[in-house]
Amino acid sequence: MLINCDMGESFGIWQLGQDEQIMPFIDMANIACGMHASDPSVMLRTVRCAKEHGVRIGAHPGYADLAGFGRRFIDMPLADLQALFIYQLGALQGICNTENIAISYVKPHGALYNAMMKSDDIFVALLQALAKYDAQLPLMVMAVPDFSRYQKFAAEYGITLLFEAFVDRTYQADGRLTPRTEANACHTDIEPIVAQAVQIFNEQCVTSNDGTKVNIKADSLCIHGDGELAAEIARVLKARLAECK
Amino acid sequence: MLINCDMGESFGIWQLGQDEQIMPFIDMANIACGMHASDPSVMLRTVRCAKEHGVRIGAHPGYADLAGFGRRFIDMPLADLQALFIYQLGALQGICNTENIAISYVKPHGALYNAMMKSDDIFVALLQALAKYDAQLPLMVMAVPDFSRYQKFAAEYGITLLFEAFVDRTYQADGRLTPRTEANACHTDIEPIVAQAVQIFNEQCVTSNDGTKVNIKADSLCIHGDGELAAEIARVLKARLAECK
Amino acid sequence: MLINCDMGESFGIWQLGQDEQIMPFIDMANIACGMHASDPSVMLRTVRCAKEHGVRIGAHPGYADLAGFGRRFIDMPLADLQALFIYQLGALQGICNTENIAISYVKPHGALYNAMMKSDDIFVALLQALAKYDAQLPLMVMAVPDFSRYQKFAAEYGITLLFEAFVDRTYQADGRLTPRTEANACHTDIEPIVAQAVQIFNEQCVTSNDGTKVNIKADSLCIHGDGELAAEIARVLKARLAECK
Amino acid sequence: MLINCDMGESFGIWQLGQDEQIMPFIDMANIACGMHASDPSVMLRTVRCAKEHGVRIGAHPGYADLAGFGRRFIDMPLADLQALFIYQLGALQGICNTENIAISYVKPHGALYNAMMKSDDIFVALLQALAKYDAQLPLMVMAVPDFSRYQKFAAEYGITLLFEAFVDRTYQADGRLTPRTEANACHTDIEPIVAQAVQIFNEQCVTSNDGTKVNIKADSLCIHGDGELAAEIARVLKARLAECK
Repeated sequence: MLINCDMGESFGIWQLGQDEQIMPFIDMANIACGMHASDPSVMLRTVRCAKEHGVRIGAHPGYADLAGFGRRFIDMPLADLQALFIYQLGALQGICNTENIAISYVKPHGALYNAMMKSDDIFVALLQALAKYDAQLPLMVMAVPDFSRYQKFAAEYGITLLFEAFVDRTYQADGRLTPRTEANACHTDIEPIVAQAVQIFNEQCVTSNDGTKVNIKADSLCIHGDGELAAEIARVLKARLAECK
Repeated sequence: MLINCDMGESFGIWQLGQDEQIMPFIDMANIACGMHASDPSVMLRTVRCAKEHGVRIGAHPGYADLAGFGRRFIDMPLADLQALFIYQLGALQGICNTENIAISYVKPHGALYNAMMKSDDIFVALLQALAKYDAQLPLMVMAVPDFSRYQKFAAEYGITLLFEAFVDRTYQADGRLTPRTEANACHTDIEPIVAQAVQIFNEQCVTSNDGTKVNIKADSLCIHGDGELAAEIARVLKARLAECK
Repeated sequence: MLINCDMGESFGIWQLGQDEQIMPFIDMANIACGMHASDPSVMLRTVRCAKEHGVRIGAHPGYADLAGFGRRFIDMPLADLQALFIYQLGALQGICNTENIAISYVKPHGALYNAMMKSDDIFVALLQALAKYDAQLPLMVMAVPDFSRYQKFAAEYGITLLFEAFVDRTYQADGRLTPRTEANACHTDIEPIVAQAVQIFNEQCVTSNDGTKVNIKADSLCIHGDGELAAEIARVLKARLAECK
Repeated sequence: MLINCDMGESFGIWQLGQDEQIMPFIDMANIACGMHASDPSVMLRTVRCAKEHGVRIGAHPGYADLAGFGRRFIDMPLADLQALFIYQLGALQGICNTENIAISYVKPHGALYNAMMKSDDIFVALLQALAKYDAQLPLMVMAVPDFSRYQKFAAEYGITLLFEAFVDRTYQADGRLTPRTEANACHTDIEPIVAQAVQIFNEQCVTSNDGTKVNIKADSLCIHGDGELAAEIARVLKARLAECK
């Protein structure tokens, strides 16, 4: 069970996240590619940091929207979206080349991630583009109770899916995340976060807001790197997951 | 003697150049990488067009300055410039991946090209970055009477240089181009352009503004794709150079 | 009956439209404000051209999306949209200040225009922002058969609406424009364009695709500035409307 | 003796500075205009905060370079620079309109500030543009021992200059700031900062690095808002200056 975290989300003078503190405790770094966050220098710094800690590098492409941090859906033609997606994978791989390392997987960011989960057209567009770019690269998507539809599309394009669950977000009974607009959307203390992680690891399920259990089979657990406790959460989680194995 | 031309300089809705008309007559397409011009969709279209005509693809990176078309010098730290340079090579190679083709060479654009020719620090920074990215990729620079200094630096980093001469620009007696601010900076008719190309090909020199001959050994001839006659110039030039061989 | 046209849609090196040819024949210039098109220099040039021809200046704000020319809906918080909208009005007025002229009206662009027509929330957000900025500035919207809903909202904020009809687009029986994806979406010849304009002027209606007449009361007629015949259409239309008066 | 500070330098999700903590202790807020930092929403928030505390609003325009925070010189034509400068003044005034408040002065940012101090052409270009925009707006420049040259140019265009001194930067014997590349460029403790402020206030001079006194007549003292002690420095400075009066 691998821990993934969004990394490299600073931009120019603006710092975001605690990459250096968190990197030692994660397994997979989703590195922003300069369109919704980051810039070439931040990308290089982040790639170096990941390499140093033996952390796998994932491309984390998003909509071209620095002002909105890639969290705003942009209604663009699929062919343009595919080119924008590939552009970002290539740019990050270019930076990786200079450190003799390769991208290991791809995880879309923010509104693009949400759009991919909701829209078959967008999901298929990304699969098709990824297959043309490099069909060996897995695509990370959200673990949902019934993922057969995603698997079917991915199989058509020969793409492996990686499923991720969220440990600092609460789930609804239907297996979706509680919207951030609701009060109980997030776990902020370490204990419930670790408990949810252990539950996913040991029982392949989470206890939703209404107390029912939801089946979630995950390859990776996503943590967020921007809270005050982020590094401490990562450290404790890493240790507890190591004990589970 | 290969003909090179800047290609893929449209951006979004805005069209520039006559790529489809010129591509059949050139050998090397310098493709903009989205920072001073172009966008991922334009890049993909241009890569496909180049591939279709068997034209070699060169990365044409520039300063990140769409508003200034990369023609304005930006005084940035060398490490940032290196990362920005590599980012663009990677992005274009990513687009090329989807068409199973590879970048063949690199030619900086506009103010970055000028900065590289004038400043040893910037030239060396680009060489160093390119060596880390892929030391097999040649770097295209301007053919000047005495290019020993450029060769020396390039050799240190194991980079091959390609020298290009300009056929639609006039030369000064010192081997530099006549500044565009002067009246006689450009050849606009086809005949003097072809004559200068043939002279470079056959005699490895050009006749400068004051009538003296300047030694110019070139691997490639650069033409510009934005004049009204651009496609016709390319066609005639291609034919005449074929006769020379 | 005033003719309006989008103007100042060039950006940096990229030219778009035939502003100088069309300006003599229009009454209202919708000037892009640098977010979806234009830049400060283009804005200044366009303001000067409009002033020279006695053409009223309208602010033409759009989504911040040069790559998409403001034609892609961006799902952003209303408060952010309001600030972005006002930013653009101020920027254009700043440029106008240097020419001692004032903005006369506001017409949103592209996806923002469509969003305003479809979504009450977005329409009201723009009205509210405009009322705070300068309640004397009219807002131009699309003339539709039943505009009572728009009038009601505008009255709440004390904003005057200007209704515009399109003369080079065809209408559906419900009073909406035929989508551009359909073959008969546009009039391309001068005669049907002028005929539609005269019909709107004299009869306050248009004949829709299925032959029924649709009531359209318009204050202004919008023409597009990017077709080959754009200047000629403007010239003929101006002359014919003058005869009608 | 008024205290000024750069404010509103966040951008989108990225926070910078401690505007809310510092605003109560300053007299003049130099508000970024969206080109080198800030965005329309940040600008609105900052204008509201300044208004609430009765702080004068200054436009703080810079080069269009978010990635470089406006600290990189961009070698652009003067006419383009003038339009870019005015665009930013207008945009901020537009935001101010919605709060019924007006810009009180203009202070260029970063590389543009440095360029204006070094290059007569650029200084005159800004004066000329400002005179066309609104000749009543003072321009803030750096207080130097001999400011007659600046005064002469400003007088030609009818612009009032405001001179600012720096209290957290050390001075060289020639009256220029010690470059940030040198170890002793900045005062970081509160006491030397306050002492330098009091010296400028009472004696119209500063003690330079080599112990000589340099004459500096200032209308305003600039503090920086990004250090850990920034708010505390502002608080103490405000109190001590009040005692001096």
